[in-house]
Amino acid sequence: MGVGSLNFIPLITMASYSEQFTVRTYGKGTIEFTGEVAAIVSRAKIQSGIVTVFVQHTSASLVIMENADPSARRDLEMFFEKLVPENTPWFIHTQEGPDDMPSHIRMALTRTSEVIPIIAGQMTLGTWQGILLFEHRRAPHTRRLAVSVVGD
Amino acid sequence: MGVGSLNFIPLITMASYSEQFTVRTYGKGTIEFTGEVAAIVSRAKIQSGIVTVFVQHTSASLVIMENADPSARRDLEMFFEKLVPENTPWFIHTQEGPDDMPSHIRMALTRTSEVIPIIAGQMTLGTWQGILLFEHRRAPHTRRLAVSVVGD
Amino acid sequence: MGVGSLNFIPLITMASYSEQFTVRTYGKGTIEFTGEVAAIVSRAKIQSGIVTVFVQHTSASLVIMENADPSARRDLEMFFEKLVPENTPWFIHTQEGPDDMPSHIRMALTRTSEVIPIIAGQMTLGTWQGILLFEHRRAPHTRRLAVSVVGD
Repeated sequence: MGVGSLNFIPLITMASYSEQFTVRTYGKGTIEFTGEVAAIVSRAKIQSGIVTVFVQHTSASLVIMENADPSARRDLEMFFEKLVPENTPWFIHTQEGPDDMPSHIRMALTRTSEVIPIIAGQMTLGTWQGILLFEHRRAPHTRRLAVSVVGD
Repeated sequence: MGVGSLNFIPLITMASYSEQFTVRTYGKGTIEFTGEVAAIVSRAKIQSGIVTVFVQHTSASLVIMENADPSARRDLEMFFEKLVPENTPWFIHTQEGPDDMPSHIRMALTRTSEVIPIIAGQMTLGTWQGILLFEHRRAPHTRRLAVSVVGD
Repeated sequence: MGVGSLNFIPLITMASYSEQFTVRTYGKGTIEFTGEVAAIVSRAKIQSGIVTVFVQHTSASLVIMENADPSARRDLEMFFEKLVPENTPWFIHTQEGPDDMPSHIRMALTRTSEVIPIIAGQMTLGTWQGILLFEHRRAPHTRRLAVSVVGD
């Protein structure tokens, strides 16, 4: 190969790659979008590195969660419904509706960004791990996600 | 352009860039420092990649939160005050004061690191998203943050 | 140095590096593995960048926490035991045992990924910050972690 090709290999492969897309939600609940992230990782053509998933909102969040049994997601959603109830009497930020302030707190308790290693071109997700968007508002929303891949 | 310039472009731009700085806090509460992170991203001269924000403490944390209405932040702070109360009778880690153990738990419930994609030289923050330092101790502190940009 | 060496330096150093390993747990509790991550950062030979730590499970999680006084970790563990109790009467996802659904929720309330800046070849961890694996199941488990370093 020689020095010349050593020179070229990282130039072709070391890179960053980003996409933004939207997910439609249908009121409170979790929606899996692992497949969309996997497709972006595939298009990035990066073998080794990391993928960052970021939700561009303050009333929806991310969680990596068991995706096999819907009952696990339902219990998760109910837990947050009870932990941060609507109509909490001492809330002062209430002008956008009873589900608004609970949304911000449930978002703070879960995640805005999630970063997953990529090895051999694949995310290192465990068998049961799905990437979920967690909608905290009652009304349907179109949520923007940014996904960025960095590696070589 | 040709092969020669393809050769050079990634060499000049693919990079990492880091800064550390401090934020002064004034007892419990949230302090926005989105501007400081945006300035570092600008100085990094990276068009595409990610920025990592990291708080180097165990009694202060990060949250990305609505930054428009101060009442939302006040309700968030009050929620954590009630969820993890000072003087919880069964705490055993109490020698550093009644606000110490709640600080560690509130930190564990929020975030130590946050990663934000950079596209076209800008963080992909949503309209209402601000990056906040969440001080959990009663006393003012000088908190160290590390910010690292990776991309090209 | 000249243009020729500017050309070569990033080619040799800009890189990603990953390792996967397991941590044995002994039922509910936190286990520090900061040393394993530091060793991977050292083997990556990256001076400036970020390290991502990712747990490949939905019933164990990560937290960066005070690692000096074991009583702080015990109070943290007890807090989650009380916040998300076993045998919560309205859980429907119960077929894998009373500690299964609480595990998923405690994981969602803490972290699946954590990203730490690297400056001068070292993680920018604060004095008291340790990287902990938080086992949420009663039984011992072998937990897989993926660690990926990106930088130059």
